[in-house]
Amino acid sequence: MPAQIDLNSDLGEGFGAWKMGDDAAMLGIVSSANIACGFHAGDPRGILTTLREAASRGVAVGAHVSYPDLAGFGRRPMDVAPEDLTADVIYQIGALQGLARAAGTRVTYVKPHGALYNTIAQDAGQADAVIAALLALDPGLALMGLAGAPILARARAAGLRVVAEAFADRAYTATGALVSRRDPGAVLHDPAQVAARMLRLATDGVIDAADGTPLRLQADSICIHGDSPDAVAMARQIRATLLAHGVTIAPFAP
Amino acid sequence: MPAQIDLNSDLGEGFGAWKMGDDAAMLGIVSSANIACGFHAGDPRGILTTLREAASRGVAVGAHVSYPDLAGFGRRPMDVAPEDLTADVIYQIGALQGLARAAGTRVTYVKPHGALYNTIAQDAGQADAVIAALLALDPGLALMGLAGAPILARARAAGLRVVAEAFADRAYTATGALVSRRDPGAVLHDPAQVAARMLRLATDGVIDAADGTPLRLQADSICIHGDSPDAVAMARQIRATLLAHGVTIAPFAP
Amino acid sequence: MPAQIDLNSDLGEGFGAWKMGDDAAMLGIVSSANIACGFHAGDPRGILTTLREAASRGVAVGAHVSYPDLAGFGRRPMDVAPEDLTADVIYQIGALQGLARAAGTRVTYVKPHGALYNTIAQDAGQADAVIAALLALDPGLALMGLAGAPILARARAAGLRVVAEAFADRAYTATGALVSRRDPGAVLHDPAQVAARMLRLATDGVIDAADGTPLRLQADSICIHGDSPDAVAMARQIRATLLAHGVTIAPFAP
Amino acid sequence: MPAQIDLNSDLGEGFGAWKMGDDAAMLGIVSSANIACGFHAGDPRGILTTLREAASRGVAVGAHVSYPDLAGFGRRPMDVAPEDLTADVIYQIGALQGLARAAGTRVTYVKPHGALYNTIAQDAGQADAVIAALLALDPGLALMGLAGAPILARARAAGLRVVAEAFADRAYTATGALVSRRDPGAVLHDPAQVAARMLRLATDGVIDAADGTPLRLQADSICIHGDSPDAVAMARQIRATLLAHGVTIAPFAP
Repeated sequence: MPAQIDLNSDLGEGFGAWKMGDDAAMLGIVSSANIACGFHAGDPRGILTTLREAASRGVAVGAHVSYPDLAGFGRRPMDVAPEDLTADVIYQIGALQGLARAAGTRVTYVKPHGALYNTIAQDAGQADAVIAALLALDPGLALMGLAGAPILARARAAGLRVVAEAFADRAYTATGALVSRRDPGAVLHDPAQVAARMLRLATDGVIDAADGTPLRLQADSICIHGDSPDAVAMARQIRATLLAHGVTIAPFAP
Repeated sequence: MPAQIDLNSDLGEGFGAWKMGDDAAMLGIVSSANIACGFHAGDPRGILTTLREAASRGVAVGAHVSYPDLAGFGRRPMDVAPEDLTADVIYQIGALQGLARAAGTRVTYVKPHGALYNTIAQDAGQADAVIAALLALDPGLALMGLAGAPILARARAAGLRVVAEAFADRAYTATGALVSRRDPGAVLHDPAQVAARMLRLATDGVIDAADGTPLRLQADSICIHGDSPDAVAMARQIRATLLAHGVTIAPFAP
Repeated sequence: MPAQIDLNSDLGEGFGAWKMGDDAAMLGIVSSANIACGFHAGDPRGILTTLREAASRGVAVGAHVSYPDLAGFGRRPMDVAPEDLTADVIYQIGALQGLARAAGTRVTYVKPHGALYNTIAQDAGQADAVIAALLALDPGLALMGLAGAPILARARAAGLRVVAEAFADRAYTATGALVSRRDPGAVLHDPAQVAARMLRLATDGVIDAADGTPLRLQADSICIHGDSPDAVAMARQIRATLLAHGVTIAPFAP
Repeated sequence: MPAQIDLNSDLGEGFGAWKMGDDAAMLGIVSSANIACGFHAGDPRGILTTLREAASRGVAVGAHVSYPDLAGFGRRPMDVAPEDLTADVIYQIGALQGLARAAGTRVTYVKPHGALYNTIAQDAGQADAVIAALLALDPGLALMGLAGAPILARARAAGLRVVAEAFADRAYTATGALVSRRDPGAVLHDPAQVAARMLRLATDGVIDAADGTPLRLQADSICIHGDSPDAVAMARQIRATLLAHGVTIAPFAP
C-alpha cells in the first residue's frame, strides 16, 4: 500500500500590525493548517485571510487553541481551572468555526498550542478539560497530539478521533520523547537530513533516536515550521522529498 | 388578534472575578437574552453559565457583539475599518455559537452593543460591515436594532430579518428618536409609568413622546435592564403588567 | 512600650465598568492600601481615584503587582521567565508611582498579589526576579510578604526593607503556615474572635494555631479584606478593638 | 550660528514574540527615541531592552503614549472621556519612567502616538486631557507635536515646553499641513530627495510644499522611520547628509 502522510504547520499567528511567518508560502506546502484563535495570536481579520487562502488551496483547518496569554504567545504554563479551560477552548473553536464558515471551509480538528500542548500531553486534569470541550461542542472534531503521549489514548478512550504527530526538526530520545530544547542537538537544522528522516518515518514508521536507536513511531501527521525563510526552505524540501518518493501528502481526514 | 411581544435584556456581562447584574433573575423575566461575547464583557466560563440557564428556561439567545474595548465596556466609539469590524463580529458570533451548542441552545439573532449599536444605527459604512458579517456567517441570523433607525431598512434590503426594539425606560422625541441621556427626563424611573407605557406600546403600537405627542412605534421587542435591584424590580413589573393584560411574552422567533 | 501595628487591604480592584469592594470605606479603616496596578485589576482612572482618597486620608500606598492575567484576577500561577517578571513588576510599580505623584502621594512599598504572592513566598527564582525589580527601580521600596515565609529573609539579605504581614481571618498551622483554603476552618468568620486574635498578635506577638498551640508570629502589618459588607464590618471591629486597647494603628513606614 | 536639529523615531514597538523595526540600528542614527508604553505596542521586557540600548548610546527618551488598542496598534480614533485619557497617559508615562530608571536613563518628553497624535493636533478637549496629564505628573516634561498644529500653542499656553516636529518622508501642503495619505505623492520614497529636503529645513527653516511653494516651517525635530530595511537606509542617508553639511544632531533638551 502506498504511503500517505499529512503535513501540518502553525499559521495565522500575526496580531494586528505584527506579522509572523509566511502563511501564503506554507499553505502551498502543507495539507493541514493549525490556525491561531486569538488567545496566543491571531486577530479576526488576519485569521479570516489565512482561512480564505487555506480554503482556496484545499488545506484542512484545525483550531490552534491556547491559554489566554498574548504577551507570552501561549508558551507559559498557566494553572487554569478545568471549567475555565473547557469554556476557553470551546470559545476559541467556535470563533474559528464562525470565521471558517465565512471563508467557505470548516474546522475538522483541534491542536492545542504551546504550553497547553505540552501540559495536556501529560496532565490528566487539563487533558480532560480539553477533551470535554471537544465532546461538548462537536464529538466529530479530531484531537491532534504528540505521537506516543498519554493524551492520545485518553482522548481515544473518551470517544474522540486522535491524530498523532511527529516533529520534523526535533531529535527524539530512545523512548520516543522529544529531546528537551535545553539539551544540545534538540533541534535539527540540516534540511536534507530532516527530509530523509521524515521520508523514512512516512514509509517505514521508523525514526532514529538521538543515540542511534531505531525508534518505531506511529505518526499521522508531521509538524513543520514556517516562521523564517530557512524554515520555509526546509518545509519545501520535506515536501519535495516525500513526493519524489511516491508518498502522498494529504489531510488525515477528508 | 391577541398582542405578543418579546422582552430582551443584556446579560453575561461579568468578566472573571467581576460580576454585573443578576442574570438568573432576569432570565426568569425576559424571553430573549443578549449575551456578551468577550469584547466588551463576558469571559467564556461566565458566558457558558448564562447560556445554560437561558437554555433551561427556554429564553432565546442573541450575540451581543461589540467593539474590542474591555476597559471602556464597549461604550466608546472606535473608528474600526470595515474589514476589521466584519471579522470581529463573525469571531464573536462564532464564539457564542460554540458555547451555545455546548449549552444545548443556539444563537438566533445579533444585537450590537453600546457604541457599535449607536454608530450603526446611523453610519452606513459600519452598518454594512455588520450586515456583511451576518450574511457571511449565517443569513438566517436576525439583526436587532433601534425601532425607526435607518439600520433596519438597510439590513432588510440586504436580505436579513430585522427585529425592532423599543427601550422601556427611555423617553422619546416626537420624531421617534431617543431623548439624549444628556437631557433631563431622558431616563424614566417610575416602574408603574414605564409598565403602563410598554403595555400601550405592545397593545396599540403607540407611545407618548416627551412633549406628549402620541407616537406610533412598531416594536417587536422591548429592552429592559437588570443591572441593579431597582432595574430588576422594574423589569418584573413590566412583565407582570403585560401578562395581566393578556399580552403574550415570547421570543420574536421560534 | 505601647504597641503599634499597620492595617493593610487590597484596593483599587475595579476595572472599567466593574466595581469591587468599598474603597472609600476601607480607606477610613486601614493605614496602608495595596493598590492594583492594572495587571490583575485596576484601570488608570479608577486607580487614580483610589490614590486621591488614600492621599487625603494619609493612608500609605503600596503597589499590588501581579502576573498579567485580568481574566483570572491574578490568581492563576503562571510560569513567567524571570527577566519578563522583573520588567513586568517595574512597569507596574512605575505606572502606580506616576499616578501617585499626580494624586499627591507616593508609593512606599510593594505587595505582590494572588498567585505571584504565593509563588514567591517559596520559589527562589521568581522571588529573586521580584527583588531585582525593586532594587533596579528604587531600593528604598519595602517588600511586604507573608510573616515567616522564606521570601522575607531573601529580600532582607538582598538589602531590601521587608514588612511581615499576618492575615486577620485565616487560621494558622502550628508551624506558622496558613491552613489551606481547601481544609475546613481555614477562614475565620466571627468578627469578635478575629479582633481578639489580632489584638493579642499586636500586643503579645502570639496567635493560637488551629490545634490550639500558641504561636509566636512577628508581624508588622495585618491584612484585612473589604470585598463584602461583612468584610467591611469585620475590618471595623478589628480597628475598634485595637484602638480601644491602646494599640496605635499606623503605616509601618513614615 | 551653526544649525542643530534632533532626529526622532518610534521604537520599542514589538510585543512579546512579535518584532517590529530594527531598534538597535535606529538607536545609532537618531538622537531621540519615542518608546512605546504598552498601550499600542511594547511589552515591559522589550521596552526595557530598548531603554538600555538608548541609555548606552546617549539617546534621549520620550514616552510614546497611545489609546488602549493593541489590536489596532493605536491607529484607530477612540472617543475616550477626558478623565480616562488623562489617567491613561499618566499611567503610561509612569510605567516608562520606572523602566527608564531601571535602565539608567529618564523620560524627558512625551509624544502621543497614531490616532491620539492626530486627534489632539486639532481637538481641544483631548488635547487638554493630555496636557493635564503632563502637568499633573511632571510639568518639566516636554510635549512633542506636529509643527504648526494648534496643540503646540495650546500646550505652551498651559506652561509646557513644546517640541515641533517635521516628517522626513511626508509631503506638505502650501498651508503647512501634511498631504493626506489617501492622496498620491503623500509619502516620499527617494532617500536623496528626502535628505536634501531635511538639510534645507534644518539650515534654512524652509521646505517645498507639494505645489512647489517654499514653506517656512519651524521644526525642532525630524521624525524618521525604521520599520523596514528601506526605512533604515533612508534614515542613515538623512543623518549622513546633515552631518556632512555641518548640522549638529542632538536631543532638543539636555
